[in-house]
Amino acid sequence: MVGMKGVIEAYNSDGIRKFFITKPSRALALYIIGSTKSSTIPRISIAGATPQATMFTPALDAEYLVYGRALSMKEIPITPEGIPTPAVLTRAILNVSNLPFFVVDSGSYLEPKIPKITLSSRNIGGRIDIEQALPEGTSEKLFNEARIIGRTLLKCCDIATIGESIPGGTTTALGIMVSLGYEAWDLISSAGPQNPLDLKRRVVAKGLERCKDLPTKDPFKANDCLGDPVHISMAGIVAGALENDLKVILAGGTQMGAVLAILKRLNFKLEDKLIIGTTRWIIEDPTSDIIKIVKMIDEKVPIAAFDYNFSDSPYEGLRYYEKGFVKEGVGAGGTALLALLSGKISRDDIIKAVYNEYGNLIRGESPEG
Amino acid sequence: MVGMKGVIEAYNSDGIRKFFITKPSRALALYIIGSTKSSTIPRISIAGATPQATMFTPALDAEYLVYGRALSMKEIPITPEGIPTPAVLTRAILNVSNLPFFVVDSGSYLEPKIPKITLSSRNIGGRIDIEQALPEGTSEKLFNEARIIGRTLLKCCDIATIGESIPGGTTTALGIMVSLGYEAWDLISSAGPQNPLDLKRRVVAKGLERCKDLPTKDPFKANDCLGDPVHISMAGIVAGALENDLKVILAGGTQMGAVLAILKRLNFKLEDKLIIGTTRWIIEDPTSDIIKIVKMIDEKVPIAAFDYNFSDSPYEGLRYYEKGFVKEGVGAGGTALLALLSGKISRDDIIKAVYNEYGNLIRGESPEG
Repeated sequence: MVGMKGVIEAYNSDGIRKFFITKPSRALALYIIGSTKSSTIPRISIAGATPQATMFTPALDAEYLVYGRALSMKEIPITPEGIPTPAVLTRAILNVSNLPFFVVDSGSYLEPKIPKITLSSRNIGGRIDIEQALPEGTSEKLFNEARIIGRTLLKCCDIATIGESIPGGTTTALGIMVSLGYEAWDLISSAGPQNPLDLKRRVVAKGLERCKDLPTKDPFKANDCLGDPVHISMAGIVAGALENDLKVILAGGTQMGAVLAILKRLNFKLEDKLIIGTTRWIIEDPTSDIIKIVKMIDEKVPIAAFDYNFSDSPYEGLRYYEKGFVKEGVGAGGTALLALLSGKISRDDIIKAVYNEYGNLIRGESPEG
Repeated sequence: MVGMKGVIEAYNSDGIRKFFITKPSRALALYIIGSTKSSTIPRISIAGATPQATMFTPALDAEYLVYGRALSMKEIPITPEGIPTPAVLTRAILNVSNLPFFVVDSGSYLEPKIPKITLSSRNIGGRIDIEQALPEGTSEKLFNEARIIGRTLLKCCDIATIGESIPGGTTTALGIMVSLGYEAWDLISSAGPQNPLDLKRRVVAKGLERCKDLPTKDPFKANDCLGDPVHISMAGIVAGALENDLKVILAGGTQMGAVLAILKRLNFKLEDKLIIGTTRWIIEDPTSDIIKIVKMIDEKVPIAAFDYNFSDSPYEGLRYYEKGFVKEGVGAGGTALLALLSGKISRDDIIKAVYNEYGNLIRGESPEG
């Protein structure tokens, strides 16, 4: 159990805004997994060894968080270059900080072999360039069902970190943002140093043609047409958490703009209640601009970034992160910030824990297998 | 959010043993649902309007807890006499006390239309008189997977209440207990005033013949043969919760003997960590003996009973409880004890909340529909 009483320094357009936790607090980290067939479009996502393999990534990430290895397949998710999933970072932090956590399945192509929260409206997302993202009405169902997690389960806590695993997620996030009227065309990030922005724009633009009659202010219709199961479910959990007066760390990169956009269009007030928690790699990414995205949607939402640096890592796979690979995912940034907030863990403890976890991984040692 | 600092008076063979919560504590109530085809044997269970209808009861109970109505069918579970499910009691308490809660599906015939924790090893139980309860190896998988809930999610809390919904559960609990060497043949309760003990004994005895070569000390093999998905999963959650130093209220009637028996055969130490939380109706049931069951399995485990009394209820359906109907289920006893422990709710508040909930139910009013 983790009691915490601390401060996260988060930056918004007015400068530093402090995110106070002023009473002994309890935290829970939730990781929302789901698939979109958009990730199988060649070159869109490197969150898997091949375009097809990206469909398995969310389930394998979830299994890795719990067991330190994949159960449904032999190997954990890697990029085509062999760089492992950021679930490695997140698991290391969860272990070293003893944080409570759980996975939420909003529509994973594979059912992970773990106990997880399952939404009964779960659905794999379609390929948004050529087909509806979700059957009509599904997004509203997902939102409302996810909201119940905030209403019933999260009552146990004062602060929630909400992360994600969805390959292709920056593309569907772009779809959600532009269909809600936020022109994020040039601003979204990617898991590689070569951000295929042109391709992502073409996919979303093609999808937008399909969705011509979309009202720009309806996030459920927008998400049915151009979104995915994950971001709408994250928004639902946030909505329920806010009803119970929790503080929320929305843990992810530029995709979190899609969650903000959904909440904004539903008129939720987020000031002093929610921050974006991400990584230094996202903030410094020359191919994207998370600060501009957040400012465009809700300038009162601050951004905090965990100061990862793997330059001195003994492992080449981690040093790749400093060359623009991976950057974020499975709540790697926000989970680190949550761990810092506990006051018992330092930045160095976190970096060291990641090195240890990665070392075990490449030596084939895992605590439970 | 509920902080609690209180005492439950629980009784064991040495007299009163107090169950202390000595620091500001956080609670979570989990309700484990699952089906066993044993409930379709005529006269075994009245937890449904017909023997076949009992298969739907766990999912409908779960939907009722969350929404105050059934979603998958028109009506909530009732006995053949029309007496509604004890989920009505539990929902009333959860609402009035604002307790965090969640449902765990270990093998429900219907998937409830709610967000719930799903075990990937979930399995509907077989009819134990004529077939295996679960495919070989399933019980161990369920136990280990459920244990992870205790290890990851329950870290957020200091105390967990663990309840159940499984029609036919006293019969499968008897199967588990006798196959583990505890002679509970005459001691188990039922949801009706006429306890069909003869029939239950015949069902279990027939099952035992099928399982002749069963080693008496292996709870996984015993449960695969003569059990069900729910009790073994409850035991797994308890095991994980104890690893995180939680206190546990095992919320149920005589069936909880099966959970104790499993934990005992796995050598868990339960003293000062766990109590059985039940209802006065179970303690006073002339057809069963929960005190004898618990003493036989682990005399150091105390029993606490919430002092329900519906004699002065304006509703006939609730007055039936005083004639020996229902008695317990969906954690109705243990959830009331947990609410008392918060120190903000009195016994009378709970009784009144149940009357209100029941009144809304028969008037067809529900908060969300």
